Amino acid sequence: MRRLTHNIMKTLQGRLDLASINTATLGHREPLHVSVDRIARAGFGGIAPWRHEVEATDVKQIARQIRSHGLTVTGYCRSTYLPALTKAEFTANIESNKAALRDAAELGARCFVMVVGGVPPGSRDLDAARRQVGEGIAELLESARQLNVPLALEPLHPMYAANRSVLNTIAQALALCDVADPQQTGMLGIAIDIYHCWWDPSLHASIALAGEAGRILAYHVSDWLHNTTDLLLDRGMMGDGVVDLPNLRRRVECAGYDGMTEVEIFSSENWWRRDIDEVLIKCAERLETVC
Amino acid sequence: MRRLTHNIMKTLQGRLDLASINTATLGHREPLHVSVDRIARAGFGGIAPWRHEVEATDVKQIARQIRSHGLTVTGYCRSTYLPALTKAEFTANIESNKAALRDAAELGARCFVMVVGGVPPGSRDLDAARRQVGEGIAELLESARQLNVPLALEPLHPMYAANRSVLNTIAQALALCDVADPQQTGMLGIAIDIYHCWWDPSLHASIALAGEAGRILAYHVSDWLHNTTDLLLDRGMMGDGVVDLPNLRRRVECAGYDGMTEVEIFSSENWWRRDIDEVLIKCAERLETVC
Repeated sequence: MRRLTHNIMKTLQGRLDLASINTATLGHREPLHVSVDRIARAGFGGIAPWRHEVEATDVKQIARQIRSHGLTVTGYCRSTYLPALTKAEFTANIESNKAALRDAAELGARCFVMVVGGVPPGSRDLDAARRQVGEGIAELLESARQLNVPLALEPLHPMYAANRSVLNTIAQALALCDVADPQQTGMLGIAIDIYHCWWDPSLHASIALAGEAGRILAYHVSDWLHNTTDLLLDRGMMGDGVVDLPNLRRRVECAGYDGMTEVEIFSSENWWRRDIDEVLIKCAERLETVC
Repeated sequence: MRRLTHNIMKTLQGRLDLASINTATLGHREPLHVSVDRIARAGFGGIAPWRHEVEATDVKQIARQIRSHGLTVTGYCRSTYLPALTKAEFTANIESNKAALRDAAELGARCFVMVVGGVPPGSRDLDAARRQVGEGIAELLESARQLNVPLALEPLHPMYAANRSVLNTIAQALALCDVADPQQTGMLGIAIDIYHCWWDPSLHASIALAGEAGRILAYHVSDWLHNTTDLLLDRGMMGDGVVDLPNLRRRVECAGYDGMTEVEIFSSENWWRRDIDEVLIKCAERLETVC
Protein backbone atom coordinates (compact mmCIF):
# COMPACT_ATOMS: atom_id res chain seq x y z
CA MET A 1 0.00 0.00 0.00
CA ARG A 2 2.74 2.42 1.01
CA ARG A 3 4.73 1.44 -2.05
CA LEU A 4 1.71 2.06 -4.26
CA THR A 5 0.98 5.48 -2.81
CA HIS A 6 4.62 6.45 -3.20
CA ASN A 7 4.53 5.37 -6.80
CA ILE A 8 1.54 7.51 -7.67
CA MET A 9 2.85 10.47 -5.68
CA LYS A 10 4.67 13.22 -7.52
CA THR A 11 8.33 12.93 -6.54
CA LEU A 12 10.32 16.05 -5.71
CA GLN A 13 13.62 14.25 -6.31
CA GLY A 14 15.38 16.31 -8.96
CA ARG A 15 12.25 18.43 -9.36
CA LEU A 16 12.95 21.68 -7.54
CA ASP A 17 11.01 23.31 -10.36
CA LEU A 18 7.95 22.03 -8.43
CA ALA A 19 9.07 23.82 -5.25
CA SER A 20 8.82 27.40 -4.11
CA ILE A 21 10.60 29.46 -1.48
CA ASN A 22 8.67 31.82 0.74
CA THR A 23 11.09 34.67 1.37
CA ALA A 24 10.35 34.59 5.11
CA THR A 25 12.45 31.41 5.09
CA LEU A 26 15.50 33.57 4.37
CA GLY A 27 14.81 35.90 7.31
CA HIS A 28 14.17 39.07 5.29
CA ARG A 29 17.83 40.00 5.56
CA GLU A 30 18.34 41.37 2.04
CA PRO A 31 16.43 43.34 -0.59
CA LEU A 32 13.86 41.31 -2.51
CA HIS A 33 15.63 41.62 -5.87
CA VAL A 34 18.69 39.87 -4.38
CA SER A 35 16.52 37.02 -3.06
CA VAL A 36 14.78 36.65 -6.41
CA ASP A 37 18.09 36.07 -8.18
CA ARG A 38 19.32 33.75 -5.45
CA ILE A 39 16.18 31.58 -5.44
CA ALA A 40 16.20 31.29 -9.24
CA ARG A 41 19.91 30.46 -9.27
CA ALA A 42 19.33 27.67 -6.74
CA GLY A 43 16.92 26.04 -9.16
CA PHE A 44 13.57 26.57 -7.46
CA GLY A 45 10.51 27.03 -9.61
CA GLY A 46 8.66 29.50 -7.42
CA ILE A 47 8.83 32.33 -4.94
CA ALA A 48 6.39 33.80 -2.41
CA PRO A 49 7.33 37.38 -1.51
CA TRP A 50 6.01 39.56 1.31
CA ARG A 51 4.29 42.91 1.01
CA HIS A 52 6.81 44.87 3.03
CA GLU A 53 9.47 43.69 0.59
CA VAL A 54 7.45 44.49 -2.53
CA GLU A 55 6.15 47.77 -1.18
CA ALA A 56 9.73 48.89 -0.47
CA THR A 57 10.57 48.67 -4.16
CA ASP A 58 9.00 49.08 -7.61
CA VAL A 59 6.40 46.36 -8.06
CA LYS A 60 6.50 46.41 -11.87
CA GLN A 61 10.27 46.06 -11.87
CA ILE A 62 10.20 43.17 -9.39
CA ALA A 63 7.44 41.52 -11.43
CA ARG A 64 9.59 41.80 -14.58
CA GLN A 65 12.60 40.33 -12.77
CA ILE A 66 10.53 37.40 -11.45
CA ARG A 67 9.08 36.74 -14.93
CA SER A 68 12.51 36.94 -16.55
CA HIS A 69 13.63 34.04 -14.36
CA GLY A 70 10.48 32.09 -15.16
CA LEU A 71 9.59 31.93 -11.47
CA THR A 72 5.99 31.28 -10.42
CA VAL A 73 4.68 33.51 -7.62
CA THR A 74 3.01 30.82 -5.52
CA GLY A 75 1.44 33.36 -3.18
CA TYR A 76 1.61 36.99 -2.14
CA CYS A 77 1.99 37.40 1.63
CA ARG A 78 -0.21 38.63 3.13
CA SER A 79 -3.51 40.37 3.94
CA THR A 80 -4.00 43.22 6.38
CA TYR A 81 -5.89 41.87 9.40
CA LEU A 82 -9.65 42.36 9.02
CA PRO A 83 -11.35 42.50 12.45
CA ALA A 84 -11.59 45.96 13.96
CA LEU A 85 -13.38 47.75 16.78
CA THR A 86 -14.69 50.54 14.55
CA LYS A 87 -16.33 50.64 11.15
CA ALA A 88 -13.73 53.16 9.95
CA GLU A 89 -10.88 50.86 10.88
CA PHE A 90 -12.58 47.88 9.24
CA THR A 91 -13.06 49.88 6.03
CA ALA A 92 -9.41 50.95 6.09
CA ASN A 93 -8.39 47.30 6.44
CA ILE A 94 -10.48 46.38 3.40
CA GLU A 95 -8.95 49.19 1.35
CA SER A 96 -5.45 48.15 2.36
CA ASN A 97 -6.18 44.64 1.13
CA LYS A 98 -7.55 45.92 -2.17
CA ALA A 99 -4.30 47.81 -2.76
CA ALA A 100 -2.32 44.65 -1.99
CA LEU A 101 -4.51 42.68 -4.39
CA ARG A 102 -3.56 45.07 -7.18
CA ASP A 103 0.12 44.38 -6.47
CA ALA A 104 -0.62 40.65 -6.36
CA ALA A 105 -2.13 40.96 -9.84
CA GLU A 106 0.92 42.88 -11.05
CA LEU A 107 3.11 40.06 -9.73
CA GLY A 108 0.95 37.42 -11.39
CA ALA A 109 0.52 35.73 -7.99
CA ARG A 110 -1.33 32.42 -7.98
CA CYS A 111 -3.13 33.59 -4.85
CA PHE A 112 -3.29 36.34 -2.24
CA VAL A 113 -2.59 34.75 1.14
CA MET A 114 -5.18 35.79 3.71
CA VAL A 115 -4.06 35.80 7.33
CA VAL A 116 -7.31 37.19 8.61
CA GLY A 117 -6.38 38.75 11.97
CA GLY A 118 -7.18 38.04 15.60
CA VAL A 119 -9.55 39.40 18.21
CA PRO A 120 -9.11 43.20 18.20
CA PRO A 121 -7.19 44.36 21.30
CA GLY A 122 -9.69 45.25 24.00
CA SER A 123 -12.38 42.88 22.69
CA ARG A 124 -13.40 39.51 24.07
CA ASP A 125 -15.83 38.77 21.25
CA LEU A 126 -14.29 35.98 19.22
CA ASP A 127 -17.56 35.30 17.40
CA ALA A 128 -17.85 38.94 16.31
CA ALA A 129 -14.30 38.89 14.97
CA ARG A 130 -15.14 35.75 13.00
CA ARG A 131 -18.26 37.38 11.57
CA GLN A 132 -16.19 40.39 10.46
CA VAL A 133 -13.82 38.05 8.66
CA GLY A 134 -16.75 36.62 6.73
CA GLU A 135 -17.93 40.11 5.78
CA GLY A 136 -14.45 41.20 4.75
CA ILE A 137 -13.91 38.17 2.55
CA ALA A 138 -17.22 38.72 0.78
CA GLU A 139 -16.21 42.30 0.08
CA LEU A 140 -12.70 41.43 -1.14
CA LEU A 141 -13.90 38.59 -3.34
CA GLU A 142 -15.32 41.07 -5.84
CA SER A 143 -11.91 42.77 -6.20
CA ALA A 144 -10.20 39.40 -6.43
CA ARG A 145 -12.48 38.44 -9.35
CA GLN A 146 -11.86 41.69 -11.17
CA LEU A 147 -8.09 41.32 -10.76
CA ASN A 148 -8.13 37.56 -11.32
CA VAL A 149 -6.18 36.84 -8.12
CA PRO A 150 -7.76 34.09 -5.99
CA LEU A 151 -8.01 34.65 -2.24
CA ALA A 152 -6.35 31.86 -0.25
CA LEU A 153 -7.64 31.76 3.33
CA GLU A 154 -4.86 30.42 5.51
CA PRO A 155 -6.10 28.80 8.74
CA LEU A 156 -3.50 29.60 11.38
CA HIS A 157 -2.60 27.45 14.36
CA PRO A 158 -5.00 27.98 17.29
CA MET A 159 -2.16 29.52 19.30
CA TYR A 160 -2.61 32.60 17.09
CA ALA A 161 -6.38 32.93 17.61
CA ALA A 162 -6.00 35.99 19.85
CA ASN A 163 -3.52 38.10 17.96
CA ARG A 164 -3.14 36.89 14.35
CA SER A 165 -6.01 34.79 13.06
CA VAL A 166 -9.45 33.82 14.30
CA LEU A 167 -9.49 31.34 11.41
CA ASN A 168 -7.96 28.20 12.87
CA THR A 169 -8.97 25.03 11.04
CA ILE A 170 -9.41 23.98 7.44
CA ALA A 171 -13.02 23.00 8.16
CA GLN A 172 -13.72 26.50 9.42
CA ALA A 173 -12.09 28.04 6.32
CA LEU A 174 -14.09 25.78 4.00
CA ALA A 175 -17.32 26.82 5.71
CA LEU A 176 -16.43 30.45 5.03
CA CYS A 177 -15.65 29.62 1.41
CA ASP A 178 -18.99 27.90 0.95
CA VAL A 179 -20.87 30.94 2.23
CA ALA A 180 -18.97 33.54 0.20
CA ASP A 181 -18.44 31.51 -2.95
CA PRO A 182 -21.07 28.78 -3.22
CA GLN A 183 -20.51 28.57 -6.97
CA GLN A 184 -16.90 27.44 -6.43
CA THR A 185 -15.61 29.96 -8.94
CA GLY A 186 -11.98 29.17 -8.22
CA MET A 187 -11.48 32.67 -6.82
CA LEU A 188 -11.77 31.64 -3.15
CA GLY A 189 -9.95 28.78 -1.50
CA ILE A 190 -7.42 27.91 1.17
CA ALA A 191 -3.70 27.75 1.76
CA ILE A 192 -2.75 24.58 3.64
CA ASP A 193 0.29 25.12 5.85
CA ILE A 194 1.24 21.94 7.67
CA TYR A 195 2.73 23.90 10.57
CA HIS A 196 -0.71 25.27 11.37
CA CYS A 197 -2.85 22.19 10.86
CA TRP A 198 -0.74 19.03 11.38
CA TRP A 199 -2.36 18.37 14.79
CA ASP A 200 -5.98 18.56 13.57
CA PRO A 201 -7.93 15.34 14.27
CA SER A 202 -10.10 16.17 11.22
CA LEU A 203 -7.15 16.98 8.96
CA HIS A 204 -7.39 14.08 6.54
CA ALA A 205 -11.13 14.52 6.03
CA SER A 206 -10.72 18.28 5.68
CA ILE A 207 -8.02 17.94 3.02
CA ALA A 208 -10.24 15.59 1.03
CA LEU A 209 -13.21 17.96 1.27
CA ALA A 210 -11.07 20.95 0.30
CA GLY A 211 -9.84 19.08 -2.75
CA GLU A 212 -13.30 17.97 -3.82
CA ALA A 213 -14.42 21.59 -3.76
CA GLY A 214 -11.36 22.67 -5.77
CA ARG A 215 -10.31 24.94 -2.93
CA ILE A 216 -6.63 24.06 -2.36
CA LEU A 217 -4.67 27.03 -3.70
CA ALA A 218 -1.34 26.61 -1.91
CA TYR A 219 0.62 24.07 0.10
CA HIS A 220 3.23 25.23 2.63
CA VAL A 221 5.77 23.08 4.43
CA SER A 222 8.17 23.38 7.34
CA ASP A 223 8.12 21.15 10.45
CA TRP A 224 6.86 21.25 14.03
CA LEU A 225 9.78 20.71 16.41
CA HIS A 226 9.07 18.30 19.27
CA ASN A 227 9.95 20.89 21.88
CA THR A 228 9.07 24.18 20.24
CA THR A 229 10.42 27.12 22.21
CA ASP A 230 8.66 30.10 20.65
CA LEU A 231 5.09 30.73 19.52
CA LEU A 232 6.15 32.38 16.28
CA LEU A 233 9.80 32.05 15.35
CA ASP A 234 10.78 28.43 16.04
CA ARG A 235 9.58 26.50 13.03
CA GLY A 236 11.67 23.55 12.02
CA MET A 237 13.29 22.56 8.73
CA MET A 238 11.42 19.72 7.03
CA GLY A 239 12.55 16.45 8.57
CA ASP A 240 13.62 17.93 11.88
CA GLY A 241 10.22 17.65 13.56
CA VAL A 242 7.23 15.41 14.18
CA VAL A 243 5.18 15.88 11.01
CA ASP A 244 4.73 13.01 8.56
CA LEU A 245 5.31 15.20 5.50
CA PRO A 246 5.17 12.59 2.70
CA ASN A 247 1.81 11.39 4.00
CA LEU A 248 0.36 14.91 4.03
CA ARG A 249 1.69 15.89 0.58
CA ARG A 250 0.29 12.65 -0.82
CA ARG A 251 -3.12 13.48 0.67
CA VAL A 252 -3.06 17.05 -0.64
CA GLU A 253 -2.06 15.91 -4.13
CA CYS A 254 -4.50 13.00 -4.19
CA ALA A 255 -7.18 15.53 -3.28
CA GLY A 256 -6.38 17.28 -6.55
CA TYR A 257 -3.79 19.93 -5.74
CA ASP A 258 -1.27 20.20 -8.56
CA GLY A 259 0.56 23.37 -7.52
CA MET A 260 3.96 23.78 -5.95
CA THR A 261 5.24 22.88 -2.51
CA GLU A 262 6.25 26.12 -0.80
CA VAL A 263 8.79 26.27 2.01
CA GLU A 264 7.95 28.77 4.76
CA ILE A 265 10.16 28.68 7.85
CA PHE A 266 10.23 31.33 10.58
CA SER A 267 13.30 30.59 12.65
CA SER A 268 14.96 33.53 14.34
CA GLU A 269 17.47 31.53 16.38
CA ASN A 270 18.49 28.94 13.82
CA TRP A 271 17.86 29.21 10.07
CA TRP A 272 17.73 32.99 10.01
CA ARG A 273 21.23 33.07 11.47
CA ARG A 274 22.74 30.85 8.80
CA ASP A 275 24.22 31.72 5.44
CA ILE A 276 21.33 32.25 3.04
CA ASP A 277 22.67 30.00 0.28
CA GLU A 278 23.24 27.28 2.90
CA VAL A 279 19.56 27.58 3.89
CA LEU A 280 18.48 27.18 0.26
CA ILE A 281 20.70 24.14 -0.19
CA LYS A 282 19.20 22.56 2.94
CA CYS A 283 15.66 23.33 1.75
CA ALA A 284 16.42 21.68 -1.59
CA GLU A 285 17.93 18.60 0.05
CA ARG A 286 15.00 18.14 2.42
CA LEU A 287 12.38 18.79 -0.26
CA GLU A 288 13.97 16.06 -2.35
CA THR A 289 14.25 13.52 0.47
CA VAL A 290 11.69 13.96 3.29
CA CYS A 291 8.74 15.89 1.83
CA MET B 1 -31.36 37.97 26.76
CA ARG B 2 -28.05 38.60 28.46
CA ARG B 3 -29.85 39.69 31.62
CA LEU B 4 -31.92 36.51 31.56
CA THR B 5 -28.94 34.21 31.12
CA HIS B 6 -27.13 35.99 33.92
CA ASN B 7 -30.12 35.49 36.16
CA ILE B 8 -30.27 31.76 35.62
CA MET B 9 -26.49 31.41 35.90
CA LYS B 10 -25.02 30.38 39.22
CA THR B 11 -23.31 33.46 40.63
CA LEU B 12 -19.87 33.15 42.20
CA GLN B 13 -20.29 36.45 44.05
CA GLY B 14 -19.81 35.57 47.72
CA ARG B 15 -19.67 31.90 46.79
CA LEU B 16 -16.02 30.90 46.90
CA ASP B 17 -17.28 27.60 48.28
CA LEU B 18 -18.13 26.86 44.63
CA ALA B 19 -14.53 27.52 43.56
CA SER B 20 -11.38 25.44 43.71
CA ILE B 21 -7.69 26.23 43.51
CA ASN B 22 -5.37 24.07 41.45
CA THR B 23 -2.09 24.18 43.36
CA ALA B 24 -0.15 24.89 40.14
CA THR B 25 -1.66 28.38 40.42
CA LEU B 26 0.54 28.96 43.48
CA GLY B 27 3.71 27.92 41.65
CA HIS B 28 4.52 24.83 43.73
CA ARG B 29 6.65 26.92 46.05
CA GLU B 30 5.68 25.32 49.36
CA PRO B 31 4.78 21.90 50.76
CA LEU B 32 1.26 20.75 49.97
CA HIS B 33 0.07 20.77 53.59
CA VAL B 34 0.84 24.50 53.80
CA SER B 35 -1.15 25.17 50.62
CA VAL B 36 -4.08 23.12 51.89
CA ASP B 37 -4.36 25.27 55.02
CA ARG B 38 -3.90 28.47 53.02
CA ILE B 39 -6.58 27.60 50.45
CA ALA B 40 -9.07 26.61 53.14
CA ARG B 41 -8.34 29.77 55.16
CA ALA B 42 -8.99 31.90 52.05
CA GLY B 43 -12.49 30.45 51.86
CA PHE B 44 -12.28 28.28 48.75
CA GLY B 45 -14.39 25.14 48.63
CA GLY B 46 -11.96 22.96 46.69
CA ILE B 47 -8.39 22.08 45.86
CA ALA B 48 -6.70 20.22 43.00
CA PRO B 49 -3.28 18.91 44.04
CA TRP B 50 -0.51 17.48 41.87
CA ARG B 51 1.07 14.07 42.09
CA HIS B 52 4.60 15.25 42.78
CA GLU B 53 3.24 17.11 45.81
CA VAL B 54 1.19 14.21 47.10
CA GLU B 55 3.86 11.62 46.38
CA ALA B 56 6.37 13.69 48.37
CA THR B 57 4.29 13.26 51.52
CA ASP B 58 1.91 10.81 53.20
CA VAL B 59 -1.22 10.54 51.11
CA LYS B 60 -3.47 9.38 53.97
CA GLN B 61 -2.36 12.27 56.13
CA ILE B 62 -2.94 14.83 53.37
CA ALA B 63 -6.32 13.27 52.65
CA ARG B 64 -7.26 13.61 56.36
CA GLN B 65 -6.13 17.25 56.39
CA ILE B 66 -8.14 18.05 53.25
CA ARG B 67 -11.24 16.34 54.71
CA SER B 68 -10.84 18.13 58.02
CA HIS B 69 -11.17 21.45 56.19
CA GLY B 70 -14.17 20.18 54.25
CA LEU B 71 -12.37 20.83 50.97
CA THR B 72 -13.48 19.01 47.82
CA VAL B 73 -10.69 17.54 45.70
CA THR B 74 -11.93 18.73 42.29
CA GLY B 75 -9.27 16.76 40.44
CA TYR B 76 -6.01 14.90 40.91
CA CYS B 77 -3.29 16.09 38.53
CA ARG B 78 -2.32 14.23 36.47
CA SER B 79 -1.78 11.05 34.44
CA THR B 80 1.53 9.66 33.26
CA TYR B 81 1.73 10.12 29.48
CA LEU B 82 0.47 7.04 27.64
CA PRO B 83 2.04 6.83 24.15
CA ALA B 84 5.33 4.93 23.98
CA LEU B 85 7.63 3.44 21.40
CA THR B 86 7.80 0.04 23.12
CA LYS B 87 5.20 -2.25 24.66
CA ALA B 88 7.21 -2.38 27.90
CA GLU B 89 7.18 1.37 28.21
CA PHE B 90 3.47 1.54 27.44
CA THR B 91 2.76 -1.06 30.14
CA ALA B 92 4.88 0.87 32.63
CA ASN B 93 2.87 4.00 31.84
CA ILE B 94 -0.37 2.15 32.51
CA GLU B 95 0.92 0.81 35.83
CA SER B 96 2.07 4.27 36.88
CA ASN B 97 -1.42 5.57 36.22
CA LYS B 98 -3.01 2.76 38.21
CA ALA B 99 -0.85 3.69 41.20
CA ALA B 100 -1.91 7.32 40.84
CA LEU B 101 -5.55 6.27 40.65
CA ARG B 102 -5.21 4.55 44.03
CA ASP B 103 -3.94 7.82 45.51
CA ALA B 104 -6.78 9.69 43.81
CA ALA B 105 -9.22 7.33 45.53
CA GLU B 106 -7.48 7.90 48.87
CA LEU B 107 -7.89 11.64 48.35
CA GLY B 108 -11.56 11.26 47.41
CA ALA B 109 -10.84 13.09 44.15
CA ARG B 110 -13.85 13.88 41.97
CA CYS B 111 -11.77 12.84 38.98
CA PHE B 112 -8.31 11.81 37.81
CA VAL B 113 -7.12 14.37 35.26
CA MET B 114 -5.76 12.67 32.16
CA VAL B 115 -3.17 14.61 30.19
CA VAL B 116 -2.57 11.84 27.73
CA GLY B 117 0.89 12.57 26.33
CA GLY B 118 2.29 13.57 22.95
CA VAL B 119 3.98 11.86 20.04
CA PRO B 120 6.83 9.78 21.51
CA PRO B 121 10.22 11.38 20.77
CA GLY B 122 11.55 9.88 17.56
CA SER B 123 8.13 9.06 16.15
CA ARG B 124 6.19 10.92 13.46
CA ASP B 125 3.09 8.77 13.81
CA LEU B 126 0.44 10.98 15.36
CA ASP B 127 -2.33 8.52 14.51
CA ALA B 128 -0.52 5.68 16.26
CA ALA B 129 -0.08 7.80 19.38
CA ARG B 130 -3.79 8.57 19.33
CA ARG B 131 -4.63 4.89 19.00
CA GLN B 132 -2.42 4.10 22.01
CA VAL B 133 -4.31 6.68 24.03
CA GLY B 134 -7.55 4.89 23.23
CA GLU B 135 -6.09 1.56 24.30
CA GLY B 136 -4.67 3.04 27.49
CA ILE B 137 -7.95 4.62 28.48
CA ALA B 138 -9.82 1.38 27.94
CA GLU B 139 -7.35 -0.37 30.19
CA LEU B 140 -7.43 2.26 32.93
CA LEU B 141 -11.20 2.51 32.93
CA GLU B 142 -11.48 -0.85 34.67
CA SER B 143 -9.27 0.38 37.53
CA ALA B 144 -11.16 3.64 37.67
CA ARG B 145 -14.43 1.73 38.13
CA GLN B 146 -13.01 -0.46 40.86
CA LEU B 147 -11.67 2.58 42.72
CA ASN B 148 -14.69 4.75 41.92
CA VAL B 149 -12.54 7.58 40.53
CA PRO B 150 -13.79 8.87 37.16
CA LEU B 151 -11.21 9.52 34.44
CA ALA B 152 -11.37 13.08 33.09
CA LEU B 153 -9.75 13.36 29.67
CA GLU B 154 -8.38 16.86 29.33
CA PRO B 155 -8.03 18.02 25.72
CA LEU B 156 -4.92 20.19 25.61
CA HIS B 157 -4.31 23.12 23.30
CA PRO B 158 -3.02 22.01 19.87
CA MET B 159 0.31 23.69 20.60
CA TYR B 160 0.98 20.72 22.91
CA ALA B 161 0.18 18.01 20.36
CA ALA B 162 3.84 17.05 19.91
CA ASN B 163 5.08 16.89 23.47
CA ARG B 164 2.18 16.78 25.95
CA SER B 165 -1.13 15.67 24.48
CA VAL B 166 -2.31 14.23 21.20
CA LEU B 167 -5.84 14.85 22.51
CA ASN B 168 -6.63 18.38 21.37
CA THR B 169 -10.34 19.08 21.11
CA ILE B 170 -13.43 18.31 23.15
CA ALA B 171 -15.00 16.59 20.14
CA GLN B 172 -11.99 14.28 19.89
CA ALA B 173 -12.20 13.50 23.63
CA LEU B 174 -15.93 12.77 23.41
CA ALA B 175 -15.33 10.37 20.53
CA LEU B 176 -12.83 8.49 22.70
CA CYS B 177 -15.32 8.42 25.57
CA ASP B 178 -18.04 7.00 23.34
CA VAL B 179 -15.79 4.15 22.22
CA ALA B 180 -14.48 3.22 25.67
CA ASP B 181 -17.64 3.90 27.66
CA PRO B 182 -20.69 3.66 25.41
CA GLN B 183 -22.91 2.99 28.43
CA GLN B 184 -22.08 6.44 29.85
CA THR B 185 -21.34 4.97 33.28
CA GLY B 186 -20.15 8.29 34.67
CA MET B 187 -16.64 6.87 35.06
CA LEU B 188 -15.25 8.47 31.89
CA GLY B 189 -15.61 12.09 30.86
CA ILE B 190 -13.71 15.26 30.17
CA ALA B 191 -12.11 18.20 31.94
CA ILE B 192 -12.88 21.45 30.14
CA ASP B 193 -10.07 23.97 30.54
CA ILE B 194 -10.87 27.21 28.78
CA TYR B 195 -7.19 27.95 28.17
CA HIS B 196 -6.98 24.89 25.95
CA CYS B 197 -10.25 25.17 24.05
CA TRP B 198 -11.42 28.81 23.95
CA TRP B 199 -10.40 29.15 20.26
CA ASP B 200 -12.32 26.07 19.02
CA PRO B 201 -14.89 26.95 16.32
CA SER B 202 -16.92 23.94 17.51
CA LEU B 203 -16.66 24.80 21.21
CA HIS B 204 -20.27 25.70 21.91
CA ALA B 205 -21.61 22.62 20.17
CA SER B 206 -19.01 20.42 21.85
CA ILE B 207 -19.89 21.71 25.33
CA ALA B 208 -23.55 21.00 24.70
CA LEU B 209 -22.80 17.47 23.47
CA ALA B 210 -20.50 16.79 26.42
CA GLY B 211 -23.22 17.89 28.81
CA GLU B 212 -25.91 15.79 27.13
CA ALA B 213 -23.71 12.74 27.58
CA GLY B 214 -23.05 13.60 31.22
CA ARG B 215 -19.34 13.80 30.49
CA ILE B 216 -18.28 17.15 32.02
CA LEU B 217 -16.29 16.24 35.11
CA ALA B 218 -14.28 19.42 35.70
CA TYR B 219 -14.17 23.05 34.61
CA HIS B 220 -10.87 24.96 34.70
CA VAL B 221 -10.38 28.69 34.24
CA SER B 222 -7.53 31.11 33.64
CA ASP B 223 -7.26 33.47 30.65
CA TRP B 224 -5.48 33.63 27.29
CA LEU B 225 -3.37 36.79 27.16
CA HIS B 226 -3.61 38.70 23.88
CA ASN B 227 0.13 38.52 23.32
CA THR B 228 1.15 35.31 25.02
CA THR B 229 4.92 35.03 25.32
CA ASP B 230 5.46 31.41 26.34
CA LEU B 231 3.92 28.14 25.20
CA LEU B 232 3.52 26.82 28.74
CA LEU B 233 4.04 29.33 31.52
CA ASP B 234 2.26 32.51 30.47
CA ARG B 235 -1.38 31.94 31.33
CA GLY B 236 -3.32 34.98 32.40
CA MET B 237 -5.43 35.70 35.48
CA MET B 238 -9.15 35.61 34.69
CA GLY B 239 -10.14 38.98 33.21
CA ASP B 240 -6.68 39.86 31.91
CA GLY B 241 -7.09 38.12 28.53
CA VAL B 242 -9.40 37.63 25.59
CA VAL B 243 -11.73 34.87 26.80
CA ASP B 244 -15.41 35.61 27.43
CA LEU B 245 -15.48 33.67 30.70
CA PRO B 246 -19.09 34.33 31.83
CA ASN B 247 -20.37 33.13 28.47
CA LEU B 248 -18.39 29.88 28.70
CA ARG B 249 -19.29 29.13 32.32
CA ARG B 250 -22.94 29.72 31.48
CA ARG B 251 -22.68 27.26 28.59
CA VAL B 252 -20.93 24.64 30.71
CA GLU B 253 -23.47 24.97 33.51
CA CYS B 254 -26.47 25.06 31.17
CA ALA B 255 -25.08 21.84 29.68
CA GLY B 256 -25.54 20.28 33.11
CA TYR B 257 -22.23 20.70 34.91
CA ASP B 258 -22.84 21.43 38.57
CA GLY B 259 -19.30 21.06 39.92
CA MET B 260 -16.82 23.69 40.96
CA THR B 261 -14.92 26.26 38.92
CA GLU B 262 -11.23 25.46 39.33
CA VAL B 263 -8.50 28.06 38.84
CA GLU B 264 -5.36 26.75 37.12
CA ILE B 265 -2.75 29.35 36.16
CA PHE B 266 0.81 28.58 35.04
CA SER B 267 2.65 31.90 35.14
CA SER B 268 6.36 31.74 35.84
CA GLU B 269 7.07 35.42 35.24
CA ASN B 270 4.06 36.98 36.90
CA TRP B 271 1.76 35.19 39.36
CA TRP B 272 4.35 32.68 40.52
CA ARG B 273 6.56 35.58 41.59
CA ARG B 274 3.90 37.21 43.76
CA ASP B 275 3.03 36.65 47.39
CA ILE B 276 0.90 33.50 47.56
CA ASP B 277 -1.87 35.00 49.67
CA GLU B 278 -2.02 37.95 47.26
CA VAL B 279 -2.53 35.46 44.40
CA LEU B 280 -5.40 33.80 46.26
CA ILE B 281 -7.03 37.16 46.99
CA LYS B 282 -6.80 38.07 43.30
CA CYS B 283 -8.25 34.69 42.26
CA ALA B 284 -11.17 35.23 44.64
CA GLU B 285 -11.81 38.76 43.40
CA ARG B 286 -11.76 37.71 39.74
CA LEU B 287 -13.87 34.60 40.32
CA GLU B 288 -16.50 36.79 41.94
CA THR B 289 -16.50 39.48 39.26
CA VAL B 290 -15.40 38.29 35.79
CA CYS B 291 -15.99 34.52 35.68
